[in-house]
Amino acid sequence: MKKQLPPSVHSFPAPAILISCGTIDKPNIITCAWFGTVNSEPPMISVSIRKERFSYPLVHNIGEFTANIPRISELELVKVCGTKSGRDVNKFSDLGITPVACPPLESAPMIDECSLVLGCKVKHELELGTHCVFIAEVVSIHCDPDRARPSGRPSPNPEDQVVYLDGNYWNLSRI
Amino acid sequence: MKKQLPPSVHSFPAPAILISCGTIDKPNIITCAWFGTVNSEPPMISVSIRKERFSYPLVHNIGEFTANIPRISELELVKVCGTKSGRDVNKFSDLGITPVACPPLESAPMIDECSLVLGCKVKHELELGTHCVFIAEVVSIHCDPDRARPSGRPSPNPEDQVVYLDGNYWNLSRI
Repeated sequence: MKKQLPPSVHSFPAPAILISCGTIDKPNIITCAWFGTVNSEPPMISVSIRKERFSYPLVHNIGEFTANIPRISELELVKVCGTKSGRDVNKFSDLGITPVACPPLESAPMIDECSLVLGCKVKHELELGTHCVFIAEVVSIHCDPDRARPSGRPSPNPEDQVVYLDGNYWNLSRI
Repeated sequence: MKKQLPPSVHSFPAPAILISCGTIDKPNIITCAWFGTVNSEPPMISVSIRKERFSYPLVHNIGEFTANIPRISELELVKVCGTKSGRDVNKFSDLGITPVACPPLESAPMIDECSLVLGCKVKHELELGTHCVFIAEVVSIHCDPDRARPSGRPSPNPEDQVVYLDGNYWNLSRI
């Protein structure tokens, strides 16, 4: 017999993603795990951002962001971008990372050091309560040459994927 | 220097979730990995379902579903529910699993054998192309007594979590 508990947020495994937004001159990064694929044709992802975050108006007003997928060796970057605010620091210069243009996006930069980046244009935004969810089309993919596969798609590199769950970071192994 | 690839669906780690819908008398289950948390207050999740799936009109018309979280020992159930259609088989009777009421939902059943279930009511639906994304409020949580924590929340049991990525199933270990 099951026990009924009150509604609460349950923690599910999700990718730790570095969302970059703003402009090349004034870029910001926020770590998001409430991120995932929502449509295959056209390719679309969703990301939820709390309305008080410094990045929220940047994504809301500009309608663009990049989803930068970190390696396990970049875990420190993931942690810092998830705990410090762009109101107080310039995360790019503080962390010694490089914002570069992400065509065809006109504003939001990508993180040059990340091996895989999706350029995203917002198509829908829903205000849900504490968070807004952005549904965005993936308009370009940029990756290190060794990550491109003959199919024209990047490798998902499962062994080098940072997963977030319940306040901790995890990696994957095959069942 | 990065290589630019055409837009495509990239595979991100995500939970393998058994979505149950319909009624106790005519229930169905579909395995979904395009699932995640989107809001904390009220707690909300999103799930994307391809419009041609047998489950799509059940969720669309009834506006309810349950998210049943499988254990690693239930991987076969995850695979069968991800590949067979409710048009051809009754997955509950074929797999020997039990649909039970999931209060306060009025229609969609939960899977009695799963150790953790979220009862979900649809609040928004967006048609995106191949898929529709449902944004739903978590209105109840049901779990096996040994999974309830003193905080009133269920344990996420990270070591017993089935993760889907790139066509394969994975488990988690701490970085």
